[in-house]
Amino acid sequence: MKHFLSAKDIDSLEALLQMASALKKAPQKFKNAGEGKTLGLLFFNNSLRTRLSTQKAAFNLGLHCMTMNFGNEGWALEFEDGTIMDQGKAEHIKEAAQVVSQYCDIMGVRAFASMTDKQKDEAELVINGFKKYATIPVLNMESSTGHPLQALADMITISENSEKKRPKVVLSWAPHPKALPQAVANSFAEMMQLYKEVDFSITHPKGYELNPEITKNIPISHDQEEALKEADFVYVKNWSTYTPYGEVLSKDKNWMITPEKLGHAKFMHCLPVRRNVVVADSVLDSDQSLVIEQANNRTFAAQVVLQKMLENL
Amino acid sequence: MKHFLSAKDIDSLEALLQMASALKKAPQKFKNAGEGKTLGLLFFNNSLRTRLSTQKAAFNLGLHCMTMNFGNEGWALEFEDGTIMDQGKAEHIKEAAQVVSQYCDIMGVRAFASMTDKQKDEAELVINGFKKYATIPVLNMESSTGHPLQALADMITISENSEKKRPKVVLSWAPHPKALPQAVANSFAEMMQLYKEVDFSITHPKGYELNPEITKNIPISHDQEEALKEADFVYVKNWSTYTPYGEVLSKDKNWMITPEKLGHAKFMHCLPVRRNVVVADSVLDSDQSLVIEQANNRTFAAQVVLQKMLENL
Amino acid sequence: MKHFLSAKDIDSLEALLQMASALKKAPQKFKNAGEGKTLGLLFFNNSLRTRLSTQKAAFNLGLHCMTMNFGNEGWALEFEDGTIMDQGKAEHIKEAAQVVSQYCDIMGVRAFASMTDKQKDEAELVINGFKKYATIPVLNMESSTGHPLQALADMITISENSEKKRPKVVLSWAPHPKALPQAVANSFAEMMQLYKEVDFSITHPKGYELNPEITKNIPISHDQEEALKEADFVYVKNWSTYTPYGEVLSKDKNWMITPEKLGHAKFMHCLPVRRNVVVADSVLDSDQSLVIEQANNRTFAAQVVLQKMLENL
Repeated sequence: MKHFLSAKDIDSLEALLQMASALKKAPQKFKNAGEGKTLGLLFFNNSLRTRLSTQKAAFNLGLHCMTMNFGNEGWALEFEDGTIMDQGKAEHIKEAAQVVSQYCDIMGVRAFASMTDKQKDEAELVINGFKKYATIPVLNMESSTGHPLQALADMITISENSEKKRPKVVLSWAPHPKALPQAVANSFAEMMQLYKEVDFSITHPKGYELNPEITKNIPISHDQEEALKEADFVYVKNWSTYTPYGEVLSKDKNWMITPEKLGHAKFMHCLPVRRNVVVADSVLDSDQSLVIEQANNRTFAAQVVLQKMLENL
Repeated sequence: MKHFLSAKDIDSLEALLQMASALKKAPQKFKNAGEGKTLGLLFFNNSLRTRLSTQKAAFNLGLHCMTMNFGNEGWALEFEDGTIMDQGKAEHIKEAAQVVSQYCDIMGVRAFASMTDKQKDEAELVINGFKKYATIPVLNMESSTGHPLQALADMITISENSEKKRPKVVLSWAPHPKALPQAVANSFAEMMQLYKEVDFSITHPKGYELNPEITKNIPISHDQEEALKEADFVYVKNWSTYTPYGEVLSKDKNWMITPEKLGHAKFMHCLPVRRNVVVADSVLDSDQSLVIEQANNRTFAAQVVLQKMLENL
Repeated sequence: MKHFLSAKDIDSLEALLQMASALKKAPQKFKNAGEGKTLGLLFFNNSLRTRLSTQKAAFNLGLHCMTMNFGNEGWALEFEDGTIMDQGKAEHIKEAAQVVSQYCDIMGVRAFASMTDKQKDEAELVINGFKKYATIPVLNMESSTGHPLQALADMITISENSEKKRPKVVLSWAPHPKALPQAVANSFAEMMQLYKEVDFSITHPKGYELNPEITKNIPISHDQEEALKEADFVYVKNWSTYTPYGEVLSKDKNWMITPEKLGHAKFMHCLPVRRNVVVADSVLDSDQSLVIEQANNRTFAAQVVLQKMLENL
C-alpha cells in the first residue's frame, strides 16, 4: 500500500487482520521497522484516540513522530488553484504538502468535514490536496468522508469477538445534539463490504440515508427494533443528513441504544460517545460493550497500516 | 508506589531523597528503566516547569512520552455520573481514562482548581476520575488541592541545602493580584509533616487559614516578621482563601518578601513568581534564592517517582 | 559557535556549507552526536517549516527534542527589569530562561517582531532576554530582526544551484496584504555579505529601505525590472517599512514576480508565500523555482548549526 486514504486501499483485509492479531501478542516485535524514519501527524481538528494511538503505533515501530496542529501552531491553507491569495490564507496546499514531504517519510492528516459545503467535503480538499502534492505517502487520520483507521480497528474488534462464521452486524444511527460527519459510518460500511463473511445491515430514521455510492446494496431499515433482532454486533453512531447536507432532522430519544434493544449483541462505538443520548449508561458499563477494545485496536490498526506503508517506501 | 497523587503515596521519603541525590550525579544511569514503555501527559492547564521537567525525567529513564493538551487538542470531559450528555461535554471520564490506559503505561494529569466550587475542587474530580477509571498508574502533575511533585522537589532542595539537623522552615503567604489555588501550599505542608526533622510553621494574614485537615498541628502565626525570625528556609507562596473559598482578601504589600524580612534564610518559591509583588527583585537575584535549584529538582522529583512507578508496573 | 543568533555567529560560512553538503548525502551520519542531550524549542509564534525542520535536524543528530508553545501552553513573560509584576505577565524572563536551562542543553526560540514598537523589536527583547539569562546556548528560530537559519538554508541552496563563480543575486521586495517583519530580508542581506563571491543587490519601492546598518553598501534600486536583468537568483520577499516602522506603503501589483521579470533566473522565497500576490503561479510551478529545495535545506541548516553547538557544549 502506498497511501492509506480509505478501505479501498486495502489489498487483503485478511492479511491485515492476521498481522494485527500477531502484533497484539508482541506489539514491539518490529520495533526497528521504522528506524531512521519520520512520521509527521498534521491535525486540522482535535483528537484523542487518533492522536495517541497513531503515536503509539509509531513508537512500537521505532518510527520517529512529529505532531503539528495547524489551527494554533500553523495557519490557514489555500486549497483552490489559481487564487489571488490576498485574504486570510497564508500558504497554498501545493507548498505545504511538498514542504512537509521534505521532513517526513510518511504523513498523517486529520481534517473533518465542514458539514456546510457538501461539494467541498466530498472533494476531500485537505487530504486529497496533500495526496496530490505530497511526495510521500499519506495516512488518513479521519477526513471529510472517511475514517478508515477507525473502521480497521472496528474490523479487528469484530473478528476477535465473533463466535460465528457469519455474524450479524448492524450499523444503527443514534441521536446527537450536533450535526456530525458521516465519515465513521461511511468507512464502517465500506469495511463491512470488504469483509465478506458478514450479514450486514443499516438502520436509521427516514431522511438519514448515507451516500448510496457507499452503501450500495446494503439492506437499510427504518425500524430499529426489527433491524437489531438477533444481531451479534450493534455498531452505533450518529451522523447528520447526507441529503440535504449536514442537518439534524431528528433527536428522537427512542433511537438511543438500551439493553433491551441490544439483546445479546455486542455494543460498538468509535468514541467519544454521549452517554444517555447515544447509548444508555447500562449498555456502556456492561460486559457487552466493546468500546475500549475498539480504542485499543486503534493502535494495532495504525501499526499494521504504517508497517505496510514502510514496506513500500 | 502505584499512583502518585499526594505526599501520602510516599512510602519512605528518606529513600526517595537518597535516590534523587544519587540520580543528580548520574541522571541517565537508569536510561533503560522505561524501555518500551509510554508515559502520557494530559494537560488541562498550562505549564512550563511541569511540562518540561516531567518530559526530561521520562527521557532520562528511557520512557517514551506523549503529551496532550485537552483544552485545544481534545475536548471537554464529563465527570458526573448518570448525566444525559446533551450539552457541551463530548466524552465521559469513564471512557477517556480507560482509553488513555490503552496507549500508555503511566499517565500524568494536570488539572487546576476552579477556585469557584470548593466541593468539586476538593473532590478532585479530574485526577480522581482518572484514578478511578484508568487501568494504569496516575501521576499528579498538580491537581485542585495538591502539587506533590513540586513539594518533593522542594524537599530535595531543602535536604541538599540544609546545614542543620533540624532546620527552621517557614511557609509564608505573599500577595498576588489573582485568586490562586492552595495546591502548592497544601503539598508543601504535607511534605514538611513527612519530614520529621524540621521546625515548621506557617504565617499568613488572618482569614487565609488553609484546610485544617492538612495543616493539623502546624503552628500558625499572623505576624510575618516574628514568624520569619531565625528561619533557615522561607517558602513563599500566595494562595486565595479557603473559607470562604477562593477570595482575595488582602493584597497587603507589607507581606511581600524583602531582604530585611528574609534575614539569613534561604528563599524558596515554586515559580512562576511575580517580581516585586510576591518578592523583591533583590531577594530573587541574591545568592539566597533557591528557586532555580527547586526548578532543577523538579526533574529529579519526577524521575524518582516515575522510577518507583515503573518498578511496580 | 556558542549561540546562533545571527549570521554574525558564523565563523566560517564555507565550512558550514561543506558540512551541509556532506550531510545531505548521509543525513544521519552523526546520529549519536546529540546522545543524551535535549533541545528545547520555545515558540512564541506559529511555525511550519521551522517547527518541523528543526525537530528533524535534532532527530538526525540523535538529540532529544521538547517543544513548547508559550501562547497556549505557557503564559506571558515579563521582559522589563524592575517592574512590579501585578498585571498580566506571570513570569519574568530571568526565571523562565534559567528554568528552561535546567531541562535542556540547547534552546531554540521563535519570537516575531511586534511591528508596532521599533525600539523593542530592535532590542530583540525575547531572544536577547533568553540569551542574557539562559545558561545554555540559544538558537534563533526567527527573531524580531533576523532569521539566520532561513538565510543559511538559502545560502546552501544558492551554493548548490550556482553555475557561476560569481552569481548575480537580487533581493526583490514584493507586495503583501499585511505588514510583515524585515527579519528574512535582513538575514539574507547579512548572509550575502558573508558570501563574498556574489554580485548582490536589492530592489524595492521607495520608502522600503531596510535598516542601513544591515544593508551597508549593498546597491539598492527602485527599478525592479532593471535590477532583475541578467540575475541568476531572484530572492523575493515582502517586508513592511523600516522608517516609519511597520507600515504598508504600497500594494503595487506591478512588483509581483512574473516569468517575464524572472527571465532565466532561479526563483527563491522562504515560504509561506501568497500565490499571485507575491509571485505568479507560473513562476512557482516552474522548474526555476527553488522554494522546495530551500525548505528542504532548512533541515541541513539547522543540523550543521546544532552540530556546531553540540561540539561546543
